[in-house]
Amino acid sequence: MGFMLAVHLENRRVDVRDLRRPIRPPDSALIRLIVGGICNTDLELQRGYYGFSGTPGHEFVGEVVAADTSALVGRRVVGEINVACGKCEWCQRGLGRHCPRRNVLGIVRHAGAFREFLTLPESNLHIVPDGISNETAVFVEPIAAACEILDQAVIPDGARVGVLGDGKLGLLVSQVLHAADKEVHLYGHHRKKLRLAERAGIRIVTPGKTLPVSAYDWIVEATGTRSGLEQAVRLARPRGTIFMKSTVHGLVRVDTAPIIVNELTLIGSRCGRFEPALKLLEAGLVNVTDMISDSMPLSEARRAFARAAERGVLKVLLTN
Amino acid sequence: MGFMLAVHLENRRVDVRDLRRPIRPPDSALIRLIVGGICNTDLELQRGYYGFSGTPGHEFVGEVVAADTSALVGRRVVGEINVACGKCEWCQRGLGRHCPRRNVLGIVRHAGAFREFLTLPESNLHIVPDGISNETAVFVEPIAAACEILDQAVIPDGARVGVLGDGKLGLLVSQVLHAADKEVHLYGHHRKKLRLAERAGIRIVTPGKTLPVSAYDWIVEATGTRSGLEQAVRLARPRGTIFMKSTVHGLVRVDTAPIIVNELTLIGSRCGRFEPALKLLEAGLVNVTDMISDSMPLSEARRAFARAAERGVLKVLLTN
Repeated sequence: MGFMLAVHLENRRVDVRDLRRPIRPPDSALIRLIVGGICNTDLELQRGYYGFSGTPGHEFVGEVVAADTSALVGRRVVGEINVACGKCEWCQRGLGRHCPRRNVLGIVRHAGAFREFLTLPESNLHIVPDGISNETAVFVEPIAAACEILDQAVIPDGARVGVLGDGKLGLLVSQVLHAADKEVHLYGHHRKKLRLAERAGIRIVTPGKTLPVSAYDWIVEATGTRSGLEQAVRLARPRGTIFMKSTVHGLVRVDTAPIIVNELTLIGSRCGRFEPALKLLEAGLVNVTDMISDSMPLSEARRAFARAAERGVLKVLLTN
Repeated sequence: MGFMLAVHLENRRVDVRDLRRPIRPPDSALIRLIVGGICNTDLELQRGYYGFSGTPGHEFVGEVVAADTSALVGRRVVGEINVACGKCEWCQRGLGRHCPRRNVLGIVRHAGAFREFLTLPESNLHIVPDGISNETAVFVEPIAAACEILDQAVIPDGARVGVLGDGKLGLLVSQVLHAADKEVHLYGHHRKKLRLAERAGIRIVTPGKTLPVSAYDWIVEATGTRSGLEQAVRLARPRGTIFMKSTVHGLVRVDTAPIIVNELTLIGSRCGRFEPALKLLEAGLVNVTDMISDSMPLSEARRAFARAAERGVLKVLLTN
């Protein structure tokens, strides 16, 4: 059996522990971690939200060590994070992401990817094409979350989309929508981050104290702040659509009158399918390399988490 | 020319004044009020919201006294309340209700219907079929607002819809959706009001302290309270849709996390087209008679407004 390194979160502390290697359940694969990515959600778990303790990590690329399906063994894979029951009406509809009995890798009742070896159902895995590097493949999960927007509504080609927030998610959303032929205007305040988007051909906007009013039919709220929704509502034209991507903790205060008077549509948006994300990366249509701020071995997870929480830092990777 | 009685709101007071009859602008009709209906919005205007002062009233049925189109003269009419520019892109799309330069009868820069004579553009008017009484026709505007829901989304026939709130709007929404073959569950706390819905064949629910969780794919929030949205979010199943009908003042506090995690859709919903509302009333599919709590002449508007604000009172009519 043997032991392995595993990141452990508890009481706001990040530790690296020696734990037993996981036992592979039937229909699951045993995967050796290659690279993991620290997401804002991981930082929130560290702050104690959701009352989480255990091994975090849901963005990863790994190599299959053992599986029921022999063709998987030795292949590089990424994995969908929702581990669904496979039997309920949601699973039957292909929406295991909403299965009420789901566990979620590194978030809900399923030990995460920040360990030398992890297990996931084979049905959650996607083989990574050879043309996609490890440092790129680790972005598949957040890119899929960005792609989810395109699964939720039909945004006409050429339509202007205002994206609020120049953090990791805002930058990925902007690139995904830009690749899908939308005219993206990315709103943010961090010059360095905005420059990444500009290099990808996206129009950037550094607003003054006030945002334009009634300017967009399509808006993505990815600020990660409690005031983002209010800003998005101001920015929306009548009958406009706002995709809500920011998970913030606690209550958000919003004036609902303009939502009703302008008959806005607000769509909550979470995880997405991996297929379109892999296609975008294979076609080289999303640049993630510039978004990597740092990379450290699993054993230095504590430092990596601290680095990821620094202002201005984008993605921090954990390598094995 | 002559004078006429007109209700006047200012500094939270309701007066009835002698004002000059309005002069009919080109393309507008001069209309003699027959019956007006006091809406919650009128009570809010009285409380000083929107900084309103002037003649309120946007629910009415009247008789055309003078018009450019001679066929209108002598006919009973109801009128759409948004007076749009007719030229902008919204008007061109048939969405004058969202024209940014619109005036709104009795709400924004257009004197309301609670006066002996009013004017409205002829294009706003709809002739009332003979089979619809005056006391019924005055409900066309709020019924149109309820019908708007059916214009905004395709709710499958037979689908369960949870309607939150047993006030005037909740009762009308319930009846409209029931008539459109949805399985409506009306949530409320007022036995008398709920009984009206029950008589119309609608299932009523008097919840205890807590609402069911994750129970409906379709929800209409018509509580008129700040806590209604939070309740609707709890009641919604993943990927569910919430129609936001409550205009409340001030900021609403809501936990956005379940909106995002469950990928809910929230749709602000305001005024609707009059045609479906007239059809429903002509077919006798919405019972409004039971919703009339009181009826008083225009000269007693102050008492009528006080009555409309009493707990448990539904519609109060003003007659001319």
